[in-house]
Amino acid sequence: MTTTDDEIFKMHGGKNPGVLSMKPRFDVTDREQLGKAYTPGVAKIAKLIAKDPQAKNEYTMSGKLVAIVTDGSAVLGLGNIGQAGGLPIIEGKALLYKDLAGVDAVPLALNQVPVDEQVETLKNLADSFAGFHLEDIAAPKCFELEEKLAQLVDIPVYHDDQEGTAIVVLAALMNACKVAHKELKDLKVLINGVGASGYATAKLLLAAGINKLILVDKEGPITAEDTNYNRYQRQLAEESDIKTKFESLDDAIEGVDAFIGLSVGDILSADQVKKMAQNPIIFALANPKPEIDPQVAHDAGVKIMATGSSQYPNQVNNVLVFPGLYRGLLKSGIKKVTPELEITIAQGLSDRIKNPTAEKFISGVFDDGVVDTVTQTIIDFANR
Amino acid sequence: MTTTDDEIFKMHGGKNPGVLSMKPRFDVTDREQLGKAYTPGVAKIAKLIAKDPQAKNEYTMSGKLVAIVTDGSAVLGLGNIGQAGGLPIIEGKALLYKDLAGVDAVPLALNQVPVDEQVETLKNLADSFAGFHLEDIAAPKCFELEEKLAQLVDIPVYHDDQEGTAIVVLAALMNACKVAHKELKDLKVLINGVGASGYATAKLLLAAGINKLILVDKEGPITAEDTNYNRYQRQLAEESDIKTKFESLDDAIEGVDAFIGLSVGDILSADQVKKMAQNPIIFALANPKPEIDPQVAHDAGVKIMATGSSQYPNQVNNVLVFPGLYRGLLKSGIKKVTPELEITIAQGLSDRIKNPTAEKFISGVFDDGVVDTVTQTIIDFANR
Repeated sequence: MTTTDDEIFKMHGGKNPGVLSMKPRFDVTDREQLGKAYTPGVAKIAKLIAKDPQAKNEYTMSGKLVAIVTDGSAVLGLGNIGQAGGLPIIEGKALLYKDLAGVDAVPLALNQVPVDEQVETLKNLADSFAGFHLEDIAAPKCFELEEKLAQLVDIPVYHDDQEGTAIVVLAALMNACKVAHKELKDLKVLINGVGASGYATAKLLLAAGINKLILVDKEGPITAEDTNYNRYQRQLAEESDIKTKFESLDDAIEGVDAFIGLSVGDILSADQVKKMAQNPIIFALANPKPEIDPQVAHDAGVKIMATGSSQYPNQVNNVLVFPGLYRGLLKSGIKKVTPELEITIAQGLSDRIKNPTAEKFISGVFDDGVVDTVTQTIIDFANR
Repeated sequence: MTTTDDEIFKMHGGKNPGVLSMKPRFDVTDREQLGKAYTPGVAKIAKLIAKDPQAKNEYTMSGKLVAIVTDGSAVLGLGNIGQAGGLPIIEGKALLYKDLAGVDAVPLALNQVPVDEQVETLKNLADSFAGFHLEDIAAPKCFELEEKLAQLVDIPVYHDDQEGTAIVVLAALMNACKVAHKELKDLKVLINGVGASGYATAKLLLAAGINKLILVDKEGPITAEDTNYNRYQRQLAEESDIKTKFESLDDAIEGVDAFIGLSVGDILSADQVKKMAQNPIIFALANPKPEIDPQVAHDAGVKIMATGSSQYPNQVNNVLVFPGLYRGLLKSGIKKVTPELEITIAQGLSDRIKNPTAEKFISGVFDDGVVDTVTQTIIDFANR
């Protein structure tokens, strides 16, 4: 990568800061235009909406505008950097929404107030938007925020770190299984790192029929009873078919088919990999450093591997999902991203790779038609 | 006006609803671009902002984006039409911001919750924006909202119905005085309609040294003691030099130099106009119907008249102010719109008309350089 810091700062800064601006549909250059675009013309539309509030979706931006919201409390690789610190990331996503899928999105930095106040804040502005995209909000707060907000508004509430990650992981895992000659539902999977994305991934794997889950977080393997873990994490342990009480990652990894890391760099050793089942599958998705260096994994005999980075084959990145997903939601009118829909999208994404190999079992971000596949899968789902 | 409803609905509706959309600064078409626009490049900017939160203004949209907020509780000519109903009006203003001044603004519909909750909602998202523009919020709630919010955030809070109206009225009044051969500070002014705009106009006239104010609202002339009026209205009566207790508008209008109507249509009669001082000044700013029909006023001897409509000469419309004003605030870094600044802007606007006449004593919306005049006045104010 030849990009210098200077290039990055130039790209985002300057007299007109940020990577997005507003684009008017037309120029207002005379009184007649003014009369249609603004007063007295808009009064016609205002009156229509006063009578039928849903008409706002047909005649104002609120029918297409997605709010990408972060409080910056859990930014990948950076931790809690404050809501302002989170802005460049969600602004980058807003840019990708527009560039890759034509979706209009606005970045919103949300203060780190108690979760009920965050919910109330977003609810109080919900009529401005066609959907919420939550981003980089720490677990377990993000679970409560998403749950409560979704109950109070009638637009989609989507947490990219959760649903987005889970969908891409499942899509990649479907094809990785084929390469490993294993059945998805028979897989014994260890998820290392059960924050927002690890939790959502575990939920989705369970929904997809993968019941042999081992969950490991900072304090070691999770059990349903251990109050070191939050109620969401304990609930997952409860739902897994594996009830063995492990001492450590070292202990738990024995005989596992797939390791899914959503944690931190360099946490998995070559020796641990060697204890896994035959044809082990490794998704080392921590950024910027994966849970195990791909070369180290390779030397330990791993062939089927994905990372979160574009430097290696098989990048598992949410950008495969979110632009096409929100366009699909807006086009289809679907308001809830259910596990069933997530599985369908994952299937659609994995089906794009006709003959998965160790070198390529998941589409690349710039592969032709990735965004369209996701959108069309959702539209088909709505119509079936 | 040949505009049909159909044209208006077409202009605002369609597959891509609304009169604005997002415009990316560049296309992301390959991995290198992705790396700069999004991950891993944005991490550099995120880290910088984490250390210095104000750097967000240099490297994200939040340094230029104005939030136009309405709860739709007091829309001109329509009343309380709900927050969604208010959207077309603020979206129209967002369009004018961009078209006339290059200012990026996003429309936000705010639920009609108690004022403290509205304040909290906006405060919790303040890091996303370079300023707040409040719009169409009912008095006296809007006074409290603006006051409290301005104390809690360090970006400008501007209520167009208040400050915007007050500035244009004062600018027009400065020149109307010249036409009438009267001194501004000697004027005896009756303000009819003391809601958001009437209140702010009265405050600004007082600040500009016009102390002979008579205030009339729905219940008749306002006195400092009458608890039919809110504390804001009573405070104005307290500040006026005129302490006479009038019975009615009919009674109060006797000998008045200028009538400023910010109320409802057809409330002022020819007989009442005839009771005013010589060379009476009438600003009948209610929309769509003025307080007195210009023809009726003319027949009653009125020569110096303004309305809120583009159908008559001398339109007093906030669009003369708000686009240039916010551009000026953003360019100068000024964070409070003080009475002193408002008077300076009004002076700048009125000075544009070198030889005011009854036919033209205030600039038109599409007159060359109106927006630039306002912006430059603010920049000069900041530098003096």
